[in-house]
Amino acid sequence: MNFHDLANPNLADLQPYVPGKPIAELQRQYGLKQIIKLASNESPLGPSTAVQAAIAMAVQDSTLYPDGNGYLLKQALSERFDLAPDQITLGNGSNDVLELIARCFAGPEDAVMFSEHAFAVYPIATKAIGATAIEVPAQAYGHDLSAMRDAVTDKTKLIFIANPNNPTGTVVSHAALKAFLMALPSQVMVVLDEAYLEYHDNPENTLTWLADFPNLIICRTFSKAYGLAGLRVGYAISHPEVADLLNRLRQPFNVNSLALAAAVAALGDEDYLTRARSVNKAGMQQYEQGLREMGLAFIPSKGNFICVDVGRAAGPVYEGLLKEGIIVRPVAGYGLPNHLRISIGLEQDNAYCLSGLAKVLADD
Amino acid sequence: MNFHDLANPNLADLQPYVPGKPIAELQRQYGLKQIIKLASNESPLGPSTAVQAAIAMAVQDSTLYPDGNGYLLKQALSERFDLAPDQITLGNGSNDVLELIARCFAGPEDAVMFSEHAFAVYPIATKAIGATAIEVPAQAYGHDLSAMRDAVTDKTKLIFIANPNNPTGTVVSHAALKAFLMALPSQVMVVLDEAYLEYHDNPENTLTWLADFPNLIICRTFSKAYGLAGLRVGYAISHPEVADLLNRLRQPFNVNSLALAAAVAALGDEDYLTRARSVNKAGMQQYEQGLREMGLAFIPSKGNFICVDVGRAAGPVYEGLLKEGIIVRPVAGYGLPNHLRISIGLEQDNAYCLSGLAKVLADD
Repeated sequence: MNFHDLANPNLADLQPYVPGKPIAELQRQYGLKQIIKLASNESPLGPSTAVQAAIAMAVQDSTLYPDGNGYLLKQALSERFDLAPDQITLGNGSNDVLELIARCFAGPEDAVMFSEHAFAVYPIATKAIGATAIEVPAQAYGHDLSAMRDAVTDKTKLIFIANPNNPTGTVVSHAALKAFLMALPSQVMVVLDEAYLEYHDNPENTLTWLADFPNLIICRTFSKAYGLAGLRVGYAISHPEVADLLNRLRQPFNVNSLALAAAVAALGDEDYLTRARSVNKAGMQQYEQGLREMGLAFIPSKGNFICVDVGRAAGPVYEGLLKEGIIVRPVAGYGLPNHLRISIGLEQDNAYCLSGLAKVLADD
Repeated sequence: MNFHDLANPNLADLQPYVPGKPIAELQRQYGLKQIIKLASNESPLGPSTAVQAAIAMAVQDSTLYPDGNGYLLKQALSERFDLAPDQITLGNGSNDVLELIARCFAGPEDAVMFSEHAFAVYPIATKAIGATAIEVPAQAYGHDLSAMRDAVTDKTKLIFIANPNNPTGTVVSHAALKAFLMALPSQVMVVLDEAYLEYHDNPENTLTWLADFPNLIICRTFSKAYGLAGLRVGYAISHPEVADLLNRLRQPFNVNSLALAAAVAALGDEDYLTRARSVNKAGMQQYEQGLREMGLAFIPSKGNFICVDVGRAAGPVYEGLLKEGIIVRPVAGYGLPNHLRISIGLEQDNAYCLSGLAKVLADD
């Protein structure tokens, strides 16, 4: 029996997202005890006490289904960001929201556009729906908005733009983004993925653009600066009619009840966010300085990670670091075969990673 | 700007799943304090201490992404049910798995079959992919497998069968199911949804059928007897190649880390499961007796709920119960306009619900 013949043809060559290696898996594989994971752009701060308290409370009701409408979280987001609740679509991580958008607005006859070196979920979501992927070559590792504008055709239904971009950490200016939106046919939906927004000193609030650009969808996440990667909460902010469509397609209980409670708590915990930013800023300086001292090039990053050019095929360097108990992220799948993406951690972990990298590169 | 023109046409009349009214929403709406919710077939036992302890431990790592492969949970399921881990697809509730199966094996050119009065997610998942829904009339509120076999055509790619069925509680015998599978063309995928399996005294292990029927996918959930509705964990068990396809389409971190830990703990907590079964059995007898005394007909149920024929349009009765602080489930959307589905709760809540029902029916 050939199940591939029975399955939708676009699944045949769908390569699933490759997550960062979990710590437990590396422990099983190499029998290591001391492991630092700087592979998945996670918060190095651990869970906040506010989040822990919210989860401990919500556990009492965990036999009940979550509130499928996410009433309290939407209220909290609305107040915090001056939105109407009906502009919000909650997702099981922003991955869920990105996929919902693709499934909602594109199909096998359509084209979906994103940049070279862009987040892996964009091509995966595109392939999963059988749409044609248009990957526009990057400029200095970042989005070439002018080339993207030129590549738009009648078939283009959806454009993904990550700002800052993962895994490169590059940003496009808000002026350039706004000009791009203004030049675009209004029937092309644009996803502005701001997963790393909180790390970027950000002068303008893109949410105010929604009034002028009804084809704009802004995606955000609690996985990074808010420290809830394990809990899976992301959201889209859009025109209410777009949110209505996305909510039709959304699984009714896509965000679990502990995640909803944790997100409300995280949103109210400004201290955690402030610490996340300052620890990240210090760690970024630590890497930039350390890498310069090692004579290694890197892509200047506005995220909570940095892409390092190790000057050779990065795979063996990644393996060498694993044996030192250091998990970083190879990014050959992003068209960056000589780079490794390192997430910014706590000072001593960053120092350990930098010295591990020096050791592995010297051994080779 | 007409977003419906931009969105996939099958979304236009997609009616999202209507969840049971959350307790908090009813409190907001009517200013009620004492509310019992018997609307969503949730465990009335509250969270087990084992689950609470597992979550409290897992919270410490909640800033990290979940293990996208669900290694520990798949190991636990494999040991418990004598499976290979590569037969398992984990889902964000079984809803997630049901939707993945539909998206994997059917598309706009195909037909998806299910019974009248079947679980609402089947028609929703069918419509979301633009496939043609074939709803086969029920027999005595349950699956008419003979009529379903007769309705199969070349276009039929997928058949959903819930056993026990929700919301009716009906079951088909394993002998009849097996005969149905044997008579079916092998390229038709069959989903056997066993969400309520644990409440049904069940002589045969359907997992042993997988060797003979590679087109069979068995879906199960932790939301009901295991008491994890708020946490969202379900799974499919299938041929490894089917699981491989489903896992390609699955979001990489679809089950959150607290849910993974809770499911492992719940699986190991046989006392909870035993209590869930015995409380349900006693509660079912309580309802059957109470309803007989009130002269109300009901559909004999093997689930953790019972569908009551209130002998008139059930909508106003549902509303009357809400005002008494009792949430049950109207099932007009399931083609049962005179029925209410009541989840089996603890003895005193069942008694309160029965007396509330008597009061509302007498008032009317």
